[in-house]
Amino acid sequence: MSTTFSAELGDLPLDRELGVTASKGFRASGIAAGIKAAGAKDLALVVNDGPADVAAGVFTTNKVAAAPVRWSQQVLTQHRFRAVVLNSGCANACTGPEGFQDTHATAEDVAEQLGFGAIDIAVCSTGLIGERLPMDAVRGGIRTAVDSLDVDAAAGLAAATAVMTTDTVPKQVAYRDPAGWSIGGFAKGAGMCAPNMATMLAVITTDAVVDARLLDFALRAAVERTFHRLDVDGSTSTNDTVLLSASGASRINPGAGAFTGALTEVCADLVEQLQIDAEGATKRVRIEVAGADSEDCATRVARTVAEDHLVGTALFGSDPNWGRIAMAVGRSGARVDPDRLDISINGVLLCKNGAKAAERDSADLSGPEIEVYIDLHLGDDSTTVLTTDLSHAYVEENSAYSS
Amino acid sequence: MSTTFSAELGDLPLDRELGVTASKGFRASGIAAGIKAAGAKDLALVVNDGPADVAAGVFTTNKVAAAPVRWSQQVLTQHRFRAVVLNSGCANACTGPEGFQDTHATAEDVAEQLGFGAIDIAVCSTGLIGERLPMDAVRGGIRTAVDSLDVDAAAGLAAATAVMTTDTVPKQVAYRDPAGWSIGGFAKGAGMCAPNMATMLAVITTDAVVDARLLDFALRAAVERTFHRLDVDGSTSTNDTVLLSASGASRINPGAGAFTGALTEVCADLVEQLQIDAEGATKRVRIEVAGADSEDCATRVARTVAEDHLVGTALFGSDPNWGRIAMAVGRSGARVDPDRLDISINGVLLCKNGAKAAERDSADLSGPEIEVYIDLHLGDDSTTVLTTDLSHAYVEENSAYSS
Repeated sequence: MSTTFSAELGDLPLDRELGVTASKGFRASGIAAGIKAAGAKDLALVVNDGPADVAAGVFTTNKVAAAPVRWSQQVLTQHRFRAVVLNSGCANACTGPEGFQDTHATAEDVAEQLGFGAIDIAVCSTGLIGERLPMDAVRGGIRTAVDSLDVDAAAGLAAATAVMTTDTVPKQVAYRDPAGWSIGGFAKGAGMCAPNMATMLAVITTDAVVDARLLDFALRAAVERTFHRLDVDGSTSTNDTVLLSASGASRINPGAGAFTGALTEVCADLVEQLQIDAEGATKRVRIEVAGADSEDCATRVARTVAEDHLVGTALFGSDPNWGRIAMAVGRSGARVDPDRLDISINGVLLCKNGAKAAERDSADLSGPEIEVYIDLHLGDDSTTVLTTDLSHAYVEENSAYSS
Repeated sequence: MSTTFSAELGDLPLDRELGVTASKGFRASGIAAGIKAAGAKDLALVVNDGPADVAAGVFTTNKVAAAPVRWSQQVLTQHRFRAVVLNSGCANACTGPEGFQDTHATAEDVAEQLGFGAIDIAVCSTGLIGERLPMDAVRGGIRTAVDSLDVDAAAGLAAATAVMTTDTVPKQVAYRDPAGWSIGGFAKGAGMCAPNMATMLAVITTDAVVDARLLDFALRAAVERTFHRLDVDGSTSTNDTVLLSASGASRINPGAGAFTGALTEVCADLVEQLQIDAEGATKRVRIEVAGADSEDCATRVARTVAEDHLVGTALFGSDPNWGRIAMAVGRSGARVDPDRLDISINGVLLCKNGAKAAERDSADLSGPEIEVYIDLHLGDDSTTVLTTDLSHAYVEENSAYSS
């Protein structure tokens, strides 16, 4: 049985004014390298100054993985990195051996200027697929980014801003434990968002003392309950990456439970910011599936409903069209008994035992938040997926923007 | 290896002026029973006057199957029916035991007026899910429909018209073999269209002499190559049904090959009409996948690309965004070697060995037809799926219309 999300999480105080530099031992920067047109910030750097440099990462399951994903997966086999360099404006995906060399050269450039080896540098890219990185701009940008590195909040925000593509706002958050350790991070992602991973890029830092094994466990546990449960459009990207770096600078070991709990809350908050800023979204939708006879079936149902075009357009129209939800449940491939299917929308039981239980108008969907509750009455497994509606703005943005 | 579609089929002369009454031994009617508002035609009847009454059917794989689907599946266990009654305006899906009784009562009513038993009558419904049929209107409509039965072309067209929901035009076609036998049919379906079945309803008649075993084989073979290859939005409906009825009135046995071939062409033509009339479509898209190492992998790739929101919106914007196609290929779950992936759009090789082969602008997508060719270079299996773009009109229609 999997549980999920903020509603069921604790209530730690989080601060969106802070991000990756909330953790001691980290410097960050975000600058305009000229990769994007129009002089917007497009290159970010996050450096771990130690004393420790433990790290963990979770990457896209897309088999057409971008060059920086394949590079960073190699870096992470050592469970450590000293810095991560990120660019927006170009995904460096589907760029062949030359694209991989560009990523390698990027890492070497950062390493040389910071005094590390290339294998100490993780690399992330986001933007248009199929185009090469403008390496002259990248190299120049790296010099500026290294010169701009700082420990303050503005530097963390600059990094969060430099990874944006169709995002309308930077997304960051931090948790500061009263005992003196912190977790902070940023994320970007607005379209091409689906589980494994649900966002294109996220970097999270901590100054807690955490060993590599716990760091990896905690990140996977947190991602499973948060990033993997966001499904905007079913389109798992070629570049999705979540990186977690621990400096140990607080000298405090919070213990596995406290650390994993706080990390999960930080991730959940970033996911909430991603959901709110999803391309063209006018509604935030929470799909909860209960009573499944396996976790796999619960997930199939939730994701099929989340990705269904007809459900998405009905929700955009504030139409409590439970028949389309029932259709999606039935085509999900999950074990379903149509005569036991219950569907509630915003707390109103509209479908009981597979048939109408109330007039659809009795559910009010005019607000910006919609909760869909599906009970299969076949077992004890459940899951929750967050999604959005399918709007005119989604079509507009994605027919006009090449990403 | 599966092959598909009109491009590879023969070139038999088809006639869209004719439909189910092109076959001798059939009467049809289509009338306004008052199930839909506004007095539109909403009840159709097709009667097989024999001498034979052999029949075959293919039904939705959706586990939340509508009452008329479950009823007609029982009828078809005998490989025969004497008549099929169809209504639009109400799907009679998710209506519980009472909904099944409504279907049974509908069949009984038709049977009584035609002098058959209820088990001789197939029933199809299409329209809003979750609402009960207005049985008074249905009963009155059946009387009128029986009185209106006729063998002429107008009667066939009336039946094709009475099954429309968001369809903008009736869809019918017939093939008349010079030897004196015929196949004719109608189909409806514009949204909630995905393989298994790709249309909500189709009725096909023939006056050829065909036994039950060949009829079933021919229908499944034709459907596999035609209806199952259309995927507008991935949303397999609760009501999808294709029925084929043979009267034997021509006294001619055309042989398995000629019959199956002509039936496949009739089905392919109906699918082409469905694709053209798909909800909100501004582009007709043909996705061909070659070089897969299994038919399952070919199908996964083709359907994932066809259903992808970001591919659909890019095509709406006439954007040859092959990076999104590569992303969809990579997330399809099929075996893929990203370094061997080739993608062509409208004949222009844009991606070779997983990387850019030409400027995307070199492919012109401004016209109404788009061909995507994906070669995985892993084996000999291939498939073709037809789809459409994801447009503003799709969102508009499906956020305003409850189906």
